[in-house]
Amino acid sequence: MNDQTPLRQSADANIFANGCAYMDDTYVPIAEAKVSVLDWGFNKSDVTYDVVHVRDGGFFRLDDHLDRFFASMAALRMKVPYDKAEMAEILTECVRKAGLRNSYVAMVTTRGVPQPGAPRKPSIIPNRFIAYAIPWVDVISEEIQERGAHLIVAKTPRIPAASVDPTVKNYHWGDMIRALFEAEDAGADTAVLLDLDGFVTEGPGFNVFAVIDGTVVSPDRGALEGVTRQSVLDVCEKLGIPSEVRPMTADELREADEVFTSTTAGGVMPASRIDGRIKGNDRPGPISMRLKETYWQLHGEGWHMTPIDY
Amino acid sequence: MNDQTPLRQSADANIFANGCAYMDDTYVPIAEAKVSVLDWGFNKSDVTYDVVHVRDGGFFRLDDHLDRFFASMAALRMKVPYDKAEMAEILTECVRKAGLRNSYVAMVTTRGVPQPGAPRKPSIIPNRFIAYAIPWVDVISEEIQERGAHLIVAKTPRIPAASVDPTVKNYHWGDMIRALFEAEDAGADTAVLLDLDGFVTEGPGFNVFAVIDGTVVSPDRGALEGVTRQSVLDVCEKLGIPSEVRPMTADELREADEVFTSTTAGGVMPASRIDGRIKGNDRPGPISMRLKETYWQLHGEGWHMTPIDY
Repeated sequence: MNDQTPLRQSADANIFANGCAYMDDTYVPIAEAKVSVLDWGFNKSDVTYDVVHVRDGGFFRLDDHLDRFFASMAALRMKVPYDKAEMAEILTECVRKAGLRNSYVAMVTTRGVPQPGAPRKPSIIPNRFIAYAIPWVDVISEEIQERGAHLIVAKTPRIPAASVDPTVKNYHWGDMIRALFEAEDAGADTAVLLDLDGFVTEGPGFNVFAVIDGTVVSPDRGALEGVTRQSVLDVCEKLGIPSEVRPMTADELREADEVFTSTTAGGVMPASRIDGRIKGNDRPGPISMRLKETYWQLHGEGWHMTPIDY
Repeated sequence: MNDQTPLRQSADANIFANGCAYMDDTYVPIAEAKVSVLDWGFNKSDVTYDVVHVRDGGFFRLDDHLDRFFASMAALRMKVPYDKAEMAEILTECVRKAGLRNSYVAMVTTRGVPQPGAPRKPSIIPNRFIAYAIPWVDVISEEIQERGAHLIVAKTPRIPAASVDPTVKNYHWGDMIRALFEAEDAGADTAVLLDLDGFVTEGPGFNVFAVIDGTVVSPDRGALEGVTRQSVLDVCEKLGIPSEVRPMTADELREADEVFTSTTAGGVMPASRIDGRIKGNDRPGPISMRLKETYWQLHGEGWHMTPIDY
């Protein structure tokens, strides 16, 4: 380290205080991370992404997120000029430049901007890649996490997998936004969506779990195969709590002993009410809390962690 | 007009040669019309839009497009600080600055960028408005228009209206993109999507029509209520050609005497093949051609035209 290094870092910290993005082969402040209105990633939501979190200076399950992101790109027939190792280095540099110990790190590939007058063929459009790291903010506030989230079962059905594959992480949130408005109108925090056959799928940005007769159950359909969901199942195994991934009806969810959600940007988040119905003592349930605490405890022990060399 | 005016226009024409956009209360070259990666309009496709075309120096059915756009915003509970007259003036100024006699003019409202750490409530996010005018380019090339488009009926079903309302113009094109890849793989130009019950809905950016026993038929469900679709129905009435908006099965479409599509960015566009099946003499059919010619002839006569004072 020479004399200039701390100076440069300090200047960078200023520029990148709100986050650092990578696009067009260069690192820019998050405020400059923008997509053209002519990019199909915006004007046709022809885009895929993934998000990995950094906690206490390390990525959590980085390889799993990279694997899923590359699988999503392949499903949409998109290509970027980076392999997984190079992309990991870009993500790391975003976090490093922003100087974040806790961060939400996104990788995004858009279809791109077609040549004017070119045939409307997605295969011929050069794809674009953007990465960015922003400061960690709990998706659900501390206060709500403590009392437990209040959920509703939305009337709006989830977009079916036959139309848009939910296992390919996507920005098709029209149904989710309608469900969030339903939740707001009902005075609830967020919503869970059913598929067209009435089975539970997922909510806006999270997987759903119910604790039924001591077993932790998560839906097998219509949902992202969440990395945090997998972590919850792994934690169940470590703790000897039985778990199942299987079809779940709305009534099973409403009548479950406990309900919780999982997300990269928050971990395990217990709920205390569904459709106004109070679970337990109107607080997060004991199994939910045990899973939440163990999830973060394992983070502290370096479980699935890729430390960042700042 | 003073001496400086032509000079200023000439400089503008240079800056705005590829199009002119309006955002944040200012007019910018189209290359600068971008949306933050943190805007829900991008990262949740929580956005609505409309597109009106300018032909020979005048908007076509501008009021209809503005009415639909304001209805779409209301459906998504979005607000912008402009009324329809002010928005019309913004759109006009975009076209004027770009100096375009033929243009594709878009108005777009995104949910906006939430405050970091704010509750995930769409209602509290300040919405953003972008408008832009770009040079007219036929969505379907002259060559394809002349021979008639080759369509397929896609296996990917249209996102159901219960999940995302197709009458609120939206960027949820995941199903359309899959259908476009199906078309590419089959060597066709584009695709028509069915709903989950097997009825014809629409294609990527266009409404669909079939000519069945002399009657022009268009689906009554799962589709945008297209302004150009309405124009086609109006032209039918003028010409004394019977028309119907009603459920249409895939087989009706395949077995129709003629098939054509309609879109703001192209008008009436005849097809000549569906799923490899040849219609008539493998060229646009006579009723399709008559509607296409009359549609453009009426344009020439100033039908529904709002002339632009350049």
